Amino acid sequence: MIRTIGFDADDTLWRNEDIFERAHERYRALLARHHPAPEVDRVLFATEMRNLALYGYGVKGFTLSCVETAIELTHGAITSAEIAEILATGREMLAHPVELLEGAAEVVPALAREYRLILVTKGDLHHQERKVAASGLAPHFQAVEIVSEKDGPAYERLRQRHGLAWPEFAMVGNSLKSDILPVLELGGSGVHVPYHLLWQHEHVEEPPLDHPRFRRAHRLADLPAVLATL
Amino acid sequence: MIRTIGFDADDTLWRNEDIFERAHERYRALLARHHPAPEVDRVLFATEMRNLALYGYGVKGFTLSCVETAIELTHGAITSAEIAEILATGREMLAHPVELLEGAAEVVPALAREYRLILVTKGDLHHQERKVAASGLAPHFQAVEIVSEKDGPAYERLRQRHGLAWPEFAMVGNSLKSDILPVLELGGSGVHVPYHLLWQHEHVEEPPLDHPRFRRAHRLADLPAVLATL
Repeated sequence: MIRTIGFDADDTLWRNEDIFERAHERYRALLARHHPAPEVDRVLFATEMRNLALYGYGVKGFTLSCVETAIELTHGAITSAEIAEILATGREMLAHPVELLEGAAEVVPALAREYRLILVTKGDLHHQERKVAASGLAPHFQAVEIVSEKDGPAYERLRQRHGLAWPEFAMVGNSLKSDILPVLELGGSGVHVPYHLLWQHEHVEEPPLDHPRFRRAHRLADLPAVLATL
Repeated sequence: MIRTIGFDADDTLWRNEDIFERAHERYRALLARHHPAPEVDRVLFATEMRNLALYGYGVKGFTLSCVETAIELTHGAITSAEIAEILATGREMLAHPVELLEGAAEVVPALAREYRLILVTKGDLHHQERKVAASGLAPHFQAVEIVSEKDGPAYERLRQRHGLAWPEFAMVGNSLKSDILPVLELGGSGVHVPYHLLWQHEHVEEPPLDHPRFRRAHRLADLPAVLATL
């Protein structure tokens, strides 16, 4: 019997990866005269992974890695005007309005009447707080937790802080790696709501389809019915 | 009678502004053939303030503002090698070891035996978490709160989350603007521990010397005696 639901935000309640995907497209176009798109993607991802321990997740670290990679890939031939364009893309990403995914505006208030809702997002504190405020959904969440990584220890801190019991907790999100698997491991439930785009870093092999506390909802509107089966 | 102490971290428990100051020196040297240092400082600060709503506090936003300002101040003549140097400075700042301030290693464990301690820092979530972990002081704090801004609403959320009573709460820190004034305003106490460097954005006019719940400690070692007078 679920009492508390943890909600992922980026690409579960509102669009995020689309914004990164558009930034990637502009970035590939900027470097197209130097390298083909797959090479640009490969080296940028390698730079992001190398910097992850220092930068963490989020648009600012992404932008810094884009500038670094552009200098590297062009052997310094990138112009300062082009670097200014990369910085401008970063600022536009941060200023981008929050676009709720279909069903979010209806299902979150409906679930808030029956469950305690906690928003659990990872990434840049300042940017995530601004998105939560802009989403209009904040009043339905009893707490908003912004963490630097969504792993077992982070969920365990969440449990302690909010007095959760794993058998009564379900996490809802689009990333098996960050939202579902660590919670199943701890004894909670996980409802996967797939999104058509997933950042390469979040990929995991296979959904745990035979796990007794794993569920999948293909639309947010299905969540109440799916949660009732747990 | 104080029961809970909120501790600022940057420039209260460990060095921070020194690291920014050294980065500023390198930045001025990099642009010295284009502009005198005061002009570099002035335009960089204006860029930082313009970007603050989007970037929030922290090294990554500072680095992005440095790149942007360098392009602007040189009318695009900055080279990609120089921009790579700015990026490298930013990564060094993030990787810089935590240097505890004199007395911190002794006074924090001592106070933890008599008070409930909560670390309250603002800025970049990922970087602050790494610094807290590296400081070795984390076990003495019952909670670590990383907030995007230290203002009245943020302290009020802290009170609710930890069941604080203002007459029993004192905040200790080096910034009158962020650590002391909002807490005095809400009915708590504030102990100012001045640091020899203060970021321009944190400057306020005058310490509230005649406020009955305001104290000053010129060394961390004085904190137990000063707190006992509240």
